[in-house]
Amino acid sequence: MKLQTSSADLLAQVGAAARVASTRSAVQALSGVQVVAADGQAELRATDMEVGLRVPLPATVERDGSVVLPARLLLDVARVLPASDVSLELRPSEGDVEIVSGSARYHVRTLRGEDFPPFPEAGDGSVVRVPADAFVATVRKVERSASKDETRPILTGILVSASGSDLKMVATDSYRLSVKETKLESPLDGEFEANVPARALGELARLAEGADDAELTVARQENQVIFSVGGAVLASRLIDGQFPNYNQLLPDGYEHDLIVDSEEVRAVVRRMSLMAQKNAPLRLRFSEGELTVSAQTPDVGEASESLPVPFAGEAFEIGFNPEFLRDGLESVDSEQAKLRLISPLRPGLIEAADDSGFLYLIMPIRLNV
Amino acid sequence: MKLQTSSADLLAQVGAAARVASTRSAVQALSGVQVVAADGQAELRATDMEVGLRVPLPATVERDGSVVLPARLLLDVARVLPASDVSLELRPSEGDVEIVSGSARYHVRTLRGEDFPPFPEAGDGSVVRVPADAFVATVRKVERSASKDETRPILTGILVSASGSDLKMVATDSYRLSVKETKLESPLDGEFEANVPARALGELARLAEGADDAELTVARQENQVIFSVGGAVLASRLIDGQFPNYNQLLPDGYEHDLIVDSEEVRAVVRRMSLMAQKNAPLRLRFSEGELTVSAQTPDVGEASESLPVPFAGEAFEIGFNPEFLRDGLESVDSEQAKLRLISPLRPGLIEAADDSGFLYLIMPIRLNV
Repeated sequence: MKLQTSSADLLAQVGAAARVASTRSAVQALSGVQVVAADGQAELRATDMEVGLRVPLPATVERDGSVVLPARLLLDVARVLPASDVSLELRPSEGDVEIVSGSARYHVRTLRGEDFPPFPEAGDGSVVRVPADAFVATVRKVERSASKDETRPILTGILVSASGSDLKMVATDSYRLSVKETKLESPLDGEFEANVPARALGELARLAEGADDAELTVARQENQVIFSVGGAVLASRLIDGQFPNYNQLLPDGYEHDLIVDSEEVRAVVRRMSLMAQKNAPLRLRFSEGELTVSAQTPDVGEASESLPVPFAGEAFEIGFNPEFLRDGLESVDSEQAKLRLISPLRPGLIEAADDSGFLYLIMPIRLNV
Repeated sequence: MKLQTSSADLLAQVGAAARVASTRSAVQALSGVQVVAADGQAELRATDMEVGLRVPLPATVERDGSVVLPARLLLDVARVLPASDVSLELRPSEGDVEIVSGSARYHVRTLRGEDFPPFPEAGDGSVVRVPADAFVATVRKVERSASKDETRPILTGILVSASGSDLKMVATDSYRLSVKETKLESPLDGEFEANVPARALGELARLAEGADDAELTVARQENQVIFSVGGAVLASRLIDGQFPNYNQLLPDGYEHDLIVDSEEVRAVVRRMSLMAQKNAPLRLRFSEGELTVSAQTPDVGEASESLPVPFAGEAFEIGFNPEFLRDGLESVDSEQAKLRLISPLRPGLIEAADDSGFLYLIMPIRLNV
C-alpha cells in the first residue's frame, strides 16, 4: 500500500472514519481505520461491528494494498502535518506505515488487518433515493427521544418508514415519543421500513450535512441497511424485534388545546428546571388564563414563575421530567406550540402549531402533593 | 439582608466568587458565596480556607445582613435571570433567600453562616503598589512551572519578590524552573518577598485582567498576603518553608548557545510529541548545523523531523519531557529563542533571545540508547 494525498483530505476523511471506529472493543483492530488502496482508488473504512463507514480518500495510488492504523493516533497525526501533501506507505518488514509530510516522518505500527471485518456488500436489494435535506431534518427532529439504554435495544433505534411522498421517523425511550412526518416534493421510487440504530442515523446526518449531495440512497436488506451520500457509504445492522405500536400510545382526544409562545415557555421551563434537582419533577399548574411552572428540591430550594396562557376550565397540576419537557419544546422549532393535555395522569402532547407533522408525547410524573 | 442589583452585575461578581469557593470541603458553607450587606454597600465573599476573595456588588441595600448561598446554584440562577434587575431578600423564618427577577421567583436555602470564616483583616502592614499589567504578565510567564503536587507544598507556590524597580517571580516543580525578572518603569514604594500559592496568583491575574485598574496593591503580612485590584480583595495564606535556592540550580556556563526560530522548533516539538506516549522522552539530537527531534513509543511507532540550527561541535543527543519542553518554548513569546546546553545529563536553558529577563531551565531525561 502506497499513496499520496492532501493533508486536508486525509484529516477530513480520517475525522469522519474515526467517529465510527470502536472506542471500547476488545478487538484492537476495531479501534482502527482501514486504509484501502485498489484499482487506483483509495478509501478509509471503520466499523464497531454495528455501524460501518466507507469514505473515499482522493489520492494517487502507487501501490495497492490495505492496512489498519489506530484511528485516534492517525487523526492526531493528520491534524499536525506540516505540509499540504502527505504520503502513506506500508513497510511490511517493519510492520508499520511510513507517513511523510514535509520534513516530518512518522512510522505508525499497524493493527492486525486479519481482525478487521469485510465491509458489508450492498447486495441485490432495491435502492431508494431520498432527498438528503429532508432525511437529515427528520432525523434531527426525533433522535433525542431514542433510548440510550442498551438493555432495551429496540428503543435505541429510530423507526424509519418511507413510501410514496411520505417519510416518517419515530423514536421513543418509553418516557417520551417523537413522531415526524415529512412530505416529500415528489414520490419516492420505492419504499422501505427499518428500525435503525439512532447512532447510525446521527452519523449519517452528520455526513450528509457535510456533503453537498442533494440525494442519499437507502438499500434496505434482510438485517442491515446501507446508506450512501456524498461518496460515503454507511452500513448499519438493523434492530431486531417489534418496534412499539406507537399509535396505541397516542390518546384519542384531549381535554385542553393551548396555543403558547414556544420560546417563552421554553425560557420559563429552563429557568425553573434549576430547582428540579435529584429527579424532582417540574410542576405545571394550569388555571384560568395562567400557567405556573414550579419546582422544588428538598434542602436546596424552590422556584416558580407564571405566564399567561389561554387555559379555561378546572385548574389542575401535572408533573414532567424537566429535561424531557425541554427536549420537546426545543424540538418544536415553530414560534408557537400547541400543548394538548387531558389530566394529571395522562400523557401530554406538544406539537408545532404550524401543522408541520411533528408531535412529541411525554409521560407525566405522578405528583405526591 | 435585602438588596436590589442588576442581573449582569450579580452574574459577573458571583462568577468571580464561585471560582474561589471550595468544591470539596467537608464544611458545606465553604462551597458557598457569602452575600454581605452593610452600611449601604454590598459585597460577595468566598474562601476555601487557603484563598479568600471579596468582590463588591453594586447594589441598593434595603436591609443590612449577611447570608451564605450555594455558589454553584447561585451562579446558575444568575445566568438565567429573565429581567435586568434582581432582588435578594433573606427570609429568616423560612431559612432561605428569595430571589426575584421579572416573573421568576426563587427560594434558595441558605448554608450555615456560622461556619463561614471571617475575612482576613488587612492589618497594619505596609502596602506596596505595583503596576497591574506588569504583575499579571510576570505571573503568566512562570505559573506553568509551579507544581500541582500537594505533597510538596513549597513547590506549589510562586516566589514573588519586589524591590526598587525589580519585580521577580520564580516557580519550579523540580523538573523545570521558570524565572521572570520584570523591570518596572518607576521604583516601588516598598518591597516584599513571599511564596504565594500559584492558584491564588492565577485568580488574581484573572481578576486584574478583567478590571481596568492600572495598579494593584500588595500587603504582605506574617503568614498571609492581601492583594487588591479593581475593587476586589484577594487574600491568600503564604506557603511556609524555604523556597529552593534556584540560583544554585542554574549552571555557571554552557557549552552551546543556539539561536533558533521559536515557532519553528515549537511546531516540530508539537508534531513529534505525538509519538512520545507512555512517558517516553522526546529526543533532541544536535549535529553539525542540524537538530533532529524524534520520539518512539513501543508498539505504537516513532517519528522524527530535522531542522537547520546553528550547531557546531561534537554531536550529542539529549532527552526531555515533551510537555515540559513545549511549556518552555511556549513561554518564550519572542520570535527567536536561545537554547543553552552543556551535555546530555545536564539541564538545558531556554531564554527569549531578546533579553527580556525570562529563563526556563529544564532537567534532561537519561536516554537508554
